[in-house]
Amino acid sequence: MTPMSIQMTDLQDLYLEQLQDVYSAEQQLLEALPRMAQAASSAELRQGFELHTQQTQEQLRRLEQIFEALGQPPGGKTCQAMRGLVAEGQEMTEKKANPAVRDAGLIAAAQRAEHYEIAAYGTLRTYAELLGRTQDVQLLQASEDEEKATDQKLTGLARSINMEALG
Amino acid sequence: MTPMSIQMTDLQDLYLEQLQDVYSAEQQLLEALPRMAQAASSAELRQGFELHTQQTQEQLRRLEQIFEALGQPPGGKTCQAMRGLVAEGQEMTEKKANPAVRDAGLIAAAQRAEHYEIAAYGTLRTYAELLGRTQDVQLLQASEDEEKATDQKLTGLARSINMEALG
Repeated sequence: MTPMSIQMTDLQDLYLEQLQDVYSAEQQLLEALPRMAQAASSAELRQGFELHTQQTQEQLRRLEQIFEALGQPPGGKTCQAMRGLVAEGQEMTEKKANPAVRDAGLIAAAQRAEHYEIAAYGTLRTYAELLGRTQDVQLLQASEDEEKATDQKLTGLARSINMEALG
Repeated sequence: MTPMSIQMTDLQDLYLEQLQDVYSAEQQLLEALPRMAQAASSAELRQGFELHTQQTQEQLRRLEQIFEALGQPPGGKTCQAMRGLVAEGQEMTEKKANPAVRDAGLIAAAQRAEHYEIAAYGTLRTYAELLGRTQDVQLLQASEDEEKATDQKLTGLARSINMEALG
C-alpha cells in the first residue's frame, strides 16, 4: 500500500495503490508457481501450473502497460495476502503426503490464490471503468477472465485427483 | 496445517487440515471485522460489517459442529493467508484517506477476504461430498452461500461509495 504519510484523496489514488498490490501479488505467484509445478505428481496438474506461469508473466506485462500509461512506477508495495497464500502453497509442497493428497492440497492452495486475484482484478476493473480508462478496462478484464478460467480448470482437475486421494 | 512430521495419507487428513485452516481464518476475521466496522464512514457499510461479524460467529459454530462430529479439536493451525488479508484491511483503517476513499478501500480488502473463504468453503464442501459426510455438506454450503451473499452485497455498496470516492 502507499506509505502511511501519503493521503489518499480520490479513487485514482486507491486505483494506483491496488494496482501496486496486485503487481506484487503476481510477482510472488510467478516465483511460487514453478515450485508448485515441480511438486505436482499429476502431469496434467504440472502442465496447468506451467501454463499459468506463462499467463502470470503476461498479466505482469499488462499491468506494466497500465503503469506506463499512468506515468507511475509499478513497484513499491508488498502484497501481504499473497505472501500468506504462497506460504501455504509452499507448506503443501514440503509436507509428507501421498502424491494424490499433495496434488489435491496444491489445487486447494492454488484456487485460494486465484480467488484473491479474481477479487483484485474485479475491483480494479470497476475502478478503471469509473475513471474512464477504457484501455485499462480491457487489459484488466483479460487477466480477470484468465484467472477465472484457471480456477475452473483446477476445479475440473480436482475431480479425478480428489477421487484418487480418497484412497 | 498439520505438523510437518504428520503424514497426510488420504482425503480425510486433508479435509481435517483444511477445516483447521478455515477455522483459524474465521477466528482472525471475527477479530478484524469490528475494527473495520469502526473505521467505516458509511452507515450502510458499518452495518454490513456488523452483520457479517454475527455471521462469522455462526460460521465458527458450524465448524465446531463439524469438528465435534469428527471427534477432533478445532484449533492447532494459523491461517497465514488470512493473516495477510487482515493486515491489509488493518492498513486501510489506519491510512490517511478521504472517508469515501477509505470506505472503498475497506470494501476492496473485505472482498478479497470473502473470496478466500468462498474458495475454502467450496473446496471443503467438495471433500465432504466425496467423504459422504452429508451433514457437513449442508453446514459448509450454508457458510459458502453466506460468503457469496456478503460479496454480492459489498459489490452493491461499492457502486455508490466508489462514485463518491471519484471526487
